Amino acid sequence: MIHGSVHLPSSSHIGEYVVIEEGVKLGEHVTIGHHTVILRGTQVGDHVSIGSHSVLGIQPKGNKQMRKSQSSVSKHLMIQSNSQIGNHVTIYSGTVIDEEVFIADQASIRENVFIGKRTVIGRGAMIELNTTIGAYCTIQTLAYVTGDTILEDHVFLGPCVSMSNDKYMGAEAYTLKGPHIREGAKIGNNASLLPGITIGKHAVVGAGSVVTKHVPNFQTVAGVPAREIKKRGNNDDQECKP
Amino acid sequence: MIHGSVHLPSSSHIGEYVVIEEGVKLGEHVTIGHHTVILRGTQVGDHVSIGSHSVLGIQPKGNKQMRKSQSSVSKHLMIQSNSQIGNHVTIYSGTVIDEEVFIADQASIRENVFIGKRTVIGRGAMIELNTTIGAYCTIQTLAYVTGDTILEDHVFLGPCVSMSNDKYMGAEAYTLKGPHIREGAKIGNNASLLPGITIGKHAVVGAGSVVTKHVPNFQTVAGVPAREIKKRGNNDDQECKP
Amino acid sequence: MIHGSVHLPSSSHIGEYVVIEEGVKLGEHVTIGHHTVILRGTQVGDHVSIGSHSVLGIQPKGNKQMRKSQSSVSKHLMIQSNSQIGNHVTIYSGTVIDEEVFIADQASIRENVFIGKRTVIGRGAMIELNTTIGAYCTIQTLAYVTGDTILEDHVFLGPCVSMSNDKYMGAEAYTLKGPHIREGAKIGNNASLLPGITIGKHAVVGAGSVVTKHVPNFQTVAGVPAREIKKRGNNDDQECKP
Repeated sequence: MIHGSVHLPSSSHIGEYVVIEEGVKLGEHVTIGHHTVILRGTQVGDHVSIGSHSVLGIQPKGNKQMRKSQSSVSKHLMIQSNSQIGNHVTIYSGTVIDEEVFIADQASIRENVFIGKRTVIGRGAMIELNTTIGAYCTIQTLAYVTGDTILEDHVFLGPCVSMSNDKYMGAEAYTLKGPHIREGAKIGNNASLLPGITIGKHAVVGAGSVVTKHVPNFQTVAGVPAREIKKRGNNDDQECKP
Repeated sequence: MIHGSVHLPSSSHIGEYVVIEEGVKLGEHVTIGHHTVILRGTQVGDHVSIGSHSVLGIQPKGNKQMRKSQSSVSKHLMIQSNSQIGNHVTIYSGTVIDEEVFIADQASIRENVFIGKRTVIGRGAMIELNTTIGAYCTIQTLAYVTGDTILEDHVFLGPCVSMSNDKYMGAEAYTLKGPHIREGAKIGNNASLLPGITIGKHAVVGAGSVVTKHVPNFQTVAGVPAREIKKRGNNDDQECKP
Repeated sequence: MIHGSVHLPSSSHIGEYVVIEEGVKLGEHVTIGHHTVILRGTQVGDHVSIGSHSVLGIQPKGNKQMRKSQSSVSKHLMIQSNSQIGNHVTIYSGTVIDEEVFIADQASIRENVFIGKRTVIGRGAMIELNTTIGAYCTIQTLAYVTGDTILEDHVFLGPCVSMSNDKYMGAEAYTLKGPHIREGAKIGNNASLLPGITIGKHAVVGAGSVVTKHVPNFQTVAGVPAREIKKRGNNDDQECKP
């Protein structure tokens, strides 16, 4: 069901049972799989490809238990040219996906998020609201990026990395603040990052570590809680190498 | 495709390509997005909103490798009034969603589960069968609630919390039993809970902890394995604060 | 939308808004739920059941940031007889699902994967490319199996198990290699496995452990980093029992 007011360029390839709502703008050479839903006002750049069963441009909701999103519902989802969106993906309104980004199946991205150029968001990865992710990042499968978080360019998050932005888990008034992960830092699979910490430039966090405080630039940490570990070279004694 | 025997109140808003099977009952002012599937017998209360691409009222299946669900296939999924269901959500038959519950995108809830009033189930959170979750709980993104588990009211599970209900991982005969998490307890992100343990009232479990035994009421634990940690106030020495 | 060239046996049950593309072959007594998409060339055996909203036979994609899949796009997805596929499942081309396999909702399986007979893939579990999983395995909910990994028969992965195949997280040239998990090994919930390690036959890894080196046959390990723990029998002192 393509809404009558939507202009479909003749260069687009649209699958079966696709829904495109009012006010959607499609660039040239856009490919859309089957059953995908593009909600009102979403803007899709040239040469964007979208898989099947994705839902794009969702308006935030919530119940009385949840914090109110700061998103203005008037802002639309914008997907820049040459980006690729997989199957079963959900992306909210007020978010910007820069050029040449790859968003894999079942990834979900909330409102007011920016994803930088050529970044990869893995399958099932979840990005919360009000978060900025730089260019050339790799966010692997099932990684979780909490709200109010900053990832600079060239950051690597391994699979199943977890983080939090609420020191008191809802028990006290607190300004939510996720980690700040600086340029080129690499976080091993299933590591846990505590709220408000900074991971320095090109720092490395070992798999399964629990990072409870700031990590200086270029430092490698591992363990629970994460501590500085020996440098590479004497591999045999190294307990938790990245 | 709305089955001919289903009564659609004139106050309902139904999207494109929705499937509503035989025997479904919809209350007043129900909103359903595009492509959502409501399977036979499901009951939906007044003012419920459901996103796109969700599948509600699924009958349990399995192969010879899996335990048989105790669910009677004769019980239906019931969603009480004012609850909100997101996109790509799956919920099984024989489950009851109380009033004003919020279930986010890609969450999945098995059969014979009860979700209490105003509880929030985060994106991609997975709730297994035969589990009871109280009122006013927050289950954050990608948290995993195993089968045969009890969460009392006001429980907080951080993102990516994990638990298990099978001490011998299928190797020995054993009555499956998940954790019992008592009122107001808070579990930090990516913590792992072992089978059959109790987390006491208002206890706090630090991020990334592995909890191997009972945690008394009001106690804070952290680490691998989780041990009691110093109280708040001398923050600097605290290794793994929630 | 069933492509005109597809032969639908009269014994099949096909839901609403299903898309079956050109060159798909369906066996006898196949059941398909609503909205499922079966992409070109996929082969489905007899008595296979598939839920709603699944997408089967996906061609791999990627951007310049990602490694090139070794999959030949000429190979098709093959699902052998008596297997069951849930709802919102994604499976790629060039993968073989053996007989009587159960793949639960939201599971996702990449290209060039083999899943052995009667294995169970839990909800939201993610299997990466070029991976072999034996027969009679149990991969529980939200477990993550990285690329270039071998699981022999009768392996048990608890919920939220994580692993990695890239020692340098993209920083250095390195042949990607996931763990090799030998017959009958059991991995507790939320454990993290490092790249290239071997978990021996019938070895047991405790919940939340971080396994940084090879685990001998029949050994039980736990902790961060994982170390051998006391045998069963003196349970009270055991800190991290499986």
